[in-house]
Amino acid sequence: MATIQPSLPKGTRDFLPNQMLKRQFVIDIIRDVFERYGYEPLETPSIEKLKVLSGKYGDEGEQLMFKVLRRGTKLEDLRRGQKEFLVTEYGQLVDEALRYDLTVPLSRVIAMHQAELTFPFKRYQIQPVWRADRPQRGRYREFYQCDIDAVGTDSLLADAEAIAVINEIWEALRIPNFTIRINNRKLLSGILQAAKISPALSTPVFVAIDKLDKIGLDGVRKELEYAELAEKDIDALLSIFGGQYANNNLLQGLLNEYADVELIHAGANELLEMMTFLENMGVPKSAYKVDLFLVRGLGYYTGPIYESVVEEPKIGSLGGGGRYDRLIGMFLGQEVPATGTSFGIDRIIDVMEELSLFPDVQTKTSVLVCMFDENTRLAAIRFTQRLRDSGVKAENYLAVSKLKKQFSYAHKRGIPHVAVIGPDEMAKNKVTLKNMVDGNQKIVLQDEAIEILRRV
Amino acid sequence: MATIQPSLPKGTRDFLPNQMLKRQFVIDIIRDVFERYGYEPLETPSIEKLKVLSGKYGDEGEQLMFKVLRRGTKLEDLRRGQKEFLVTEYGQLVDEALRYDLTVPLSRVIAMHQAELTFPFKRYQIQPVWRADRPQRGRYREFYQCDIDAVGTDSLLADAEAIAVINEIWEALRIPNFTIRINNRKLLSGILQAAKISPALSTPVFVAIDKLDKIGLDGVRKELEYAELAEKDIDALLSIFGGQYANNNLLQGLLNEYADVELIHAGANELLEMMTFLENMGVPKSAYKVDLFLVRGLGYYTGPIYESVVEEPKIGSLGGGGRYDRLIGMFLGQEVPATGTSFGIDRIIDVMEELSLFPDVQTKTSVLVCMFDENTRLAAIRFTQRLRDSGVKAENYLAVSKLKKQFSYAHKRGIPHVAVIGPDEMAKNKVTLKNMVDGNQKIVLQDEAIEILRRV
Repeated sequence: MATIQPSLPKGTRDFLPNQMLKRQFVIDIIRDVFERYGYEPLETPSIEKLKVLSGKYGDEGEQLMFKVLRRGTKLEDLRRGQKEFLVTEYGQLVDEALRYDLTVPLSRVIAMHQAELTFPFKRYQIQPVWRADRPQRGRYREFYQCDIDAVGTDSLLADAEAIAVINEIWEALRIPNFTIRINNRKLLSGILQAAKISPALSTPVFVAIDKLDKIGLDGVRKELEYAELAEKDIDALLSIFGGQYANNNLLQGLLNEYADVELIHAGANELLEMMTFLENMGVPKSAYKVDLFLVRGLGYYTGPIYESVVEEPKIGSLGGGGRYDRLIGMFLGQEVPATGTSFGIDRIIDVMEELSLFPDVQTKTSVLVCMFDENTRLAAIRFTQRLRDSGVKAENYLAVSKLKKQFSYAHKRGIPHVAVIGPDEMAKNKVTLKNMVDGNQKIVLQDEAIEILRRV
Repeated sequence: MATIQPSLPKGTRDFLPNQMLKRQFVIDIIRDVFERYGYEPLETPSIEKLKVLSGKYGDEGEQLMFKVLRRGTKLEDLRRGQKEFLVTEYGQLVDEALRYDLTVPLSRVIAMHQAELTFPFKRYQIQPVWRADRPQRGRYREFYQCDIDAVGTDSLLADAEAIAVINEIWEALRIPNFTIRINNRKLLSGILQAAKISPALSTPVFVAIDKLDKIGLDGVRKELEYAELAEKDIDALLSIFGGQYANNNLLQGLLNEYADVELIHAGANELLEMMTFLENMGVPKSAYKVDLFLVRGLGYYTGPIYESVVEEPKIGSLGGGGRYDRLIGMFLGQEVPATGTSFGIDRIIDVMEELSLFPDVQTKTSVLVCMFDENTRLAAIRFTQRLRDSGVKAENYLAVSKLKKQFSYAHKRGIPHVAVIGPDEMAKNKVTLKNMVDGNQKIVLQDEAIEILRRV
């Protein structure tokens, strides 16, 4: 038989059952929290029209998008290099691409289905996205995004809810030593204003500020010098930013000192209101921290922003988000306030693996019912079926063979119990039940075995 | 603000929350049954290398595959029609495509991860596939497939298990009047042999036989004439096939009459053994029926085959499968026996909608906690949080506004309860709880309300 050497596209992965169990564990918990907070499920197609995606992710994004070839193109023709496949204008060969994030599709959904939706619209979406990035540890070309967004509300309660959801998910997954850094874009702009720095310089300044984690305060200063800020402006700026280390009551301090700077006023008060909500939602103060150095790369945020980090392992952000009141309007021609956050499933799984936070389970199957011999196999099949009817996850070994082989199969699979019905057991409606973990075994009535396994 | 008219690629769909609830309802039930029978989850990348997919789906399949453009191709260059994008050889512009089914990826996984897997390997996989077919009612370009397969076993118990799973899923979804048609490829080949028809003619004969539903027995006869079968061969063939209508004990009849035709012997005995297993698995005889006219299009089946149909609505097959002992080997260079079945989620949902089988639920949220005024809103937030902590799916209306507006929001969303904490209720730790379905309302202690809503 002729064979070909199979391989996977770069940056993509198979998830075998033991890996899938971990992914399902994480996703089930996340979905449960989302639903308890009233977010509703949405799914969008993997393929979007290029005209929908185009112009939303910058030049780099456009280059990293996976484009899809025009339908009906024959490989034969491609092979032959037919002249008609010379691309002479945009859209002839390519007019669709794979989903690049979940926010642009959400915006498209809002525009297309406005009349069918009830606002405020709180939705969650858990689907893969594709980016042709250079693959590296923790970065894949196909990966799941997991987003919640509240659309059509400017209430800061929606922002606080997102943070409460984040806190509850980290708690449910038992992630230790996490911090939700929170900040506000208005406050950041206000600080620039207070330091009398031109808004035109905000991008290089924010880029520099954002790097504090990596390059320290001296590094930030150097970056600012490189961005050609005057020494006195840098001093003014860093004295405000640096203030957080000196001042326990950062926000009140800023409010007192810059009462006349409207954006500081607005930003700090938004943070204070959010924190009041968080307190009433039972989010412990230890879970979050106002951090003026949090910027978040994307340009579209307009208010509160937040991001989760863990102390160990050092792996970057586990997810973050913020308010973006001007993005959704791009399809609608009118502004729609919105806020939301994204969870990085792959990084979460990496962290949980590193910290051994997954339950020690290899399979969901509770019991393997062995096939003792030809005379008893139908009894084994009937018993297996009764287990399944009682809600027990049960498997038959699929053929009569040596018990040793069947036990070894259960062991390899990590199935915690095996059941054997030999002629003696069959005659008395009994079964030998062996616990594969502690090695104990006993002969019990089949009814009793079903009760035992139901309670596992 | 400049806007663009958003639209979806042809044959793709958004699933809004009310549609998603139905999809989750179906998928959750299917997944639960899969897991009770010991199938384990697998996911593979959406993108596969063309060399893996190529040659597996015939010419039509290759044409219907969504091909993915080489990474890093700039739209700018495409727009300009750069000469370098003239495709001169296979693979320069395109070397990957979107998943076309779940069976070829499974075969690739077996070949690549053989050492990590325990055989027999029973896996389930629920993921979208893409086919650039002409879209029509019930046929989409992106749709979910939902497969179980048992790989590495030639036991007919694996085939019987697949049928038991099918039966249990239709029962759990309350699909009425379904029939699982079962047949066997060996038996089909044996009948050709018995009618002394050359194996070279098997394709046109099977194609004709398969059409009985659509064109009737006379139509099948015409098709066979068109395929240039001699009149006497057609008579011989149809007298065997037609026998099922006259003969209650079809299989025993065939075994008696054609004891010397080895393939009839093998195929009929396989069916009989499978039926013994089904009986012991509690699958009622009314759920399935041996049907010699079942062929199933794909060429790769080697043994038992099966397919589910419902009486109403007439929508074709809800899914089917069979044994394919020679397919998986294509990557391995050695034969690997396998059997499995596929469920068509979209058709299942169409049938269930047509028969009104979905629970009348618009949202999973149990209660909307209203915002009475500024003085009580923190009490409302605290109450909402206590509900969530008790496992109740609860939402806050996100802003203080007229109660009428908040009630109307709950009504539109289909949320079955609203809760209001005004100043009086707040003073006494009480809440007004209104049932939106029957209109009843009462004032109860907040603790009591939590208990009531937990039990909903």
